[in-house]
Amino acid sequence: MLHILLAVLDLGGTFVFAISGAITAVKHRLDIFGVLVLSFAAGNVGGITRDVLIGAVPPAAIADWKYIAVSVLAGLITFFWYPVTDRFSNEVLWFDAVGLAFFAVAGTEKALVHGLTPVMAPLLGMLTGIGGGMLRDVLVAEIPIVLRADLYALAALAGAIVVVVGRVLHVSPIATTIVGGGLCFALRFMAIHYGWHLPTAWPRDDTKS
Amino acid sequence: MLHILLAVLDLGGTFVFAISGAITAVKHRLDIFGVLVLSFAAGNVGGITRDVLIGAVPPAAIADWKYIAVSVLAGLITFFWYPVTDRFSNEVLWFDAVGLAFFAVAGTEKALVHGLTPVMAPLLGMLTGIGGGMLRDVLVAEIPIVLRADLYALAALAGAIVVVVGRVLHVSPIATTIVGGGLCFALRFMAIHYGWHLPTAWPRDDTKS
Amino acid sequence: MLHILLAVLDLGGTFVFAISGAITAVKHRLDIFGVLVLSFAAGNVGGITRDVLIGAVPPAAIADWKYIAVSVLAGLITFFWYPVTDRFSNEVLWFDAVGLAFFAVAGTEKALVHGLTPVMAPLLGMLTGIGGGMLRDVLVAEIPIVLRADLYALAALAGAIVVVVGRVLHVSPIATTIVGGGLCFALRFMAIHYGWHLPTAWPRDDTKS
Repeated sequence: MLHILLAVLDLGGTFVFAISGAITAVKHRLDIFGVLVLSFAAGNVGGITRDVLIGAVPPAAIADWKYIAVSVLAGLITFFWYPVTDRFSNEVLWFDAVGLAFFAVAGTEKALVHGLTPVMAPLLGMLTGIGGGMLRDVLVAEIPIVLRADLYALAALAGAIVVVVGRVLHVSPIATTIVGGGLCFALRFMAIHYGWHLPTAWPRDDTKS
Repeated sequence: MLHILLAVLDLGGTFVFAISGAITAVKHRLDIFGVLVLSFAAGNVGGITRDVLIGAVPPAAIADWKYIAVSVLAGLITFFWYPVTDRFSNEVLWFDAVGLAFFAVAGTEKALVHGLTPVMAPLLGMLTGIGGGMLRDVLVAEIPIVLRADLYALAALAGAIVVVVGRVLHVSPIATTIVGGGLCFALRFMAIHYGWHLPTAWPRDDTKS
Repeated sequence: MLHILLAVLDLGGTFVFAISGAITAVKHRLDIFGVLVLSFAAGNVGGITRDVLIGAVPPAAIADWKYIAVSVLAGLITFFWYPVTDRFSNEVLWFDAVGLAFFAVAGTEKALVHGLTPVMAPLLGMLTGIGGGMLRDVLVAEIPIVLRADLYALAALAGAIVVVVGRVLHVSPIATTIVGGGLCFALRFMAIHYGWHLPTAWPRDDTKS
């Protein structure tokens, strides 16, 4: 049961993140193959990194054809209906928040299953959520938006922590998954809607060397 | 026999990709050590990533001194005879196409040997071919040319698929290696010679946010 | 005894590199979470990469909470006392040299313990030393300073080679650690103080395509 839930969350997150990768690629005028590579990278590199770090090789995204199929599908949809996808770019932001919630929760569960401690598992959940987006932006030579966006990584971490606390308190995984994912989505939703920011530090000099 | 063939293809691919890394480093005025680091990265990171993903650790490029020796040799040749290397930059493009063919084929064979499915093995072959070039460009803060160049990744994928189809049909590995590598090289050659491009998507707005 | 020495060197190196990551993040106006991510990346990615490559998964920096604790501490200190940290930026350069020495030596020892050959172990020690700084700079879309700075990677390699030579000659690990680390620090110190550079190659054309 938990197994199926994890798989659905993982593939759903892969799909929405792959769309974000494809949109970035189209905006930078990559050709269709570049679009598919960025779809795959954005949708799967967070999970692949997690799997390599916890020793689960070959990673699910490599061993199971469903991940690449979902990524390619998302890339093709974006490529051929870009004007449509672009008009829905606000909706994409919501999809992305859903993907983040899926990945943060599923990544944390998988890390716990592989024996990581309750301190480190949420961090791997967060990495699952932000890893793909970081590589997506690095590949188009930009500073990852994940490192600057409103409460992005923090929302992922909050959802991941809920999952771990639930596990320690022996709450049903289904319940913690829903609450953790919901919290992650809600935080990200509020951050976008109300423009919540985390503070930056003090260097007020405008000239950046 | 297949073992020796794989080793020769792998080291040959490493050499020509290491030269491409060194040329990029010299163009960005890195010092000799930076040149050697980029030689190693361009020549080996595709294969290292493949080995980590299929669980073959330590990766061949780390465990076997020949890979680093070949990379350093390529870096030193480029560094000390740069004006000569540069005059042959068109030839380097051909070498690079040879390297791509070598890596795509050898990477696919290795993935099959380690038990990956016929669906995923060609993707790992392609990754072996394009991974080093991607890191090379990311390290000098540019969008990887691999993601934009004429039929680059697609040529690698086509060659890799030939290897897998041959394996499924029980054709001799030597034959599929030659046909697959030849197809990859031919596609890349035609793409450079005739300026073949893959299509890009529709965003015709010139202002890129 | 060697075990404790390695742990202290590793955590000390993590702390000073995490500070360098945090300073880079603050200079690029990332928010506090981005600062912590860059602290962790700069302080730990070199060691994580080494551990993945030698098959020691989950990597120490993931399995042991002390690494993340030290990284977060360094990030918070930098974030809240940035004007102070910035005034000591020359001192940070010295700290960074100390961290490089720690990592180069500890990374080489760990690679030897995991059975790597005396040829490859120093290269993994060097990678431990420069990996975090490379990702730090890539994440803010800059060419890694490691690839250009005065004798940076070479100092790490020299210290690492001392450790390996000592091991081959059956010298006490404590002695080789001190001599190797000292050599690395001294080379880097001299390079900064006297402006020592490695040579670059010949392309004298000012227009860089």
